[in-house]
Amino acid sequence: MERMTPEECRSFLLSPVRTGKLATVRKDGRPLIVPVWYDLEGETLVFMTGRDSIKARNIRHEPRVSVCVDDEVTPFAYVELAGTAVMSDDADQVRYWATRIGGRYMGQALAETYGQINSGSGELIVHVTPTHLYGYKEVTGRYPQPT
Amino acid sequence: MERMTPEECRSFLLSPVRTGKLATVRKDGRPLIVPVWYDLEGETLVFMTGRDSIKARNIRHEPRVSVCVDDEVTPFAYVELAGTAVMSDDADQVRYWATRIGGRYMGQALAETYGQINSGSGELIVHVTPTHLYGYKEVTGRYPQPT
Repeated sequence: MERMTPEECRSFLLSPVRTGKLATVRKDGRPLIVPVWYDLEGETLVFMTGRDSIKARNIRHEPRVSVCVDDEVTPFAYVELAGTAVMSDDADQVRYWATRIGGRYMGQALAETYGQINSGSGELIVHVTPTHLYGYKEVTGRYPQPT
Repeated sequence: MERMTPEECRSFLLSPVRTGKLATVRKDGRPLIVPVWYDLEGETLVFMTGRDSIKARNIRHEPRVSVCVDDEVTPFAYVELAGTAVMSDDADQVRYWATRIGGRYMGQALAETYGQINSGSGELIVHVTPTHLYGYKEVTGRYPQPT
């Protein structure tokens, strides 16, 4: 298992396109995980959610969140980005990010379509500025590998 | 987006083989996510960890955990299994599960090898009996898909 540099962590988060698994904490103290579409803006991770979603409610109560992205095949790798989430309902920004993130996950040909689908009233942009960023690659690298 | 039945959730958790993303809560209230290798025994999800790992420490403080497994390509799907974790250091059980889970992720030819690697002193088996199990498939199914 080999530690990634911060730059390797950011490269891993950007490509190939994978979903982020977002953990938030419920009011009763239980963790919740859901997959999210995201993109990076510099060091900040950006995703969207509905104003009334459970994750938005959790974030209003406890803004400290964690996002994990991993490579699920041998020799395995993963990155965790943890930080404080800040939510915004600015309509221009919602439309911009819905288009940008939609294009990232569904292809540029559908960016505008998903920009429209995902920028209705009640959508929020969530910025997570990392307080912690770490990653490991070659998790099983020093052990025998499947042939 | 279409809700999965409990049976569909269990099938999804079993095949194809994907990693689980485990969320635990730290003493200071922040969530932590890490990928885990797991298998199901009936309805119970089983994974392993080191006695001194951060996730084991978190579980001793707050045993309520959540595990998410997702399909990262269009039309996207995911399952969340949440429940209370119970840890055991029974040596026979540790060896059994290290072999079984090692075979699941690295192939049967390497099951015994990984059974040995992952059953050293200090390894724990964690059973999570679900209090909540739900899943969604065809998340983007009713919208335009990439061609």
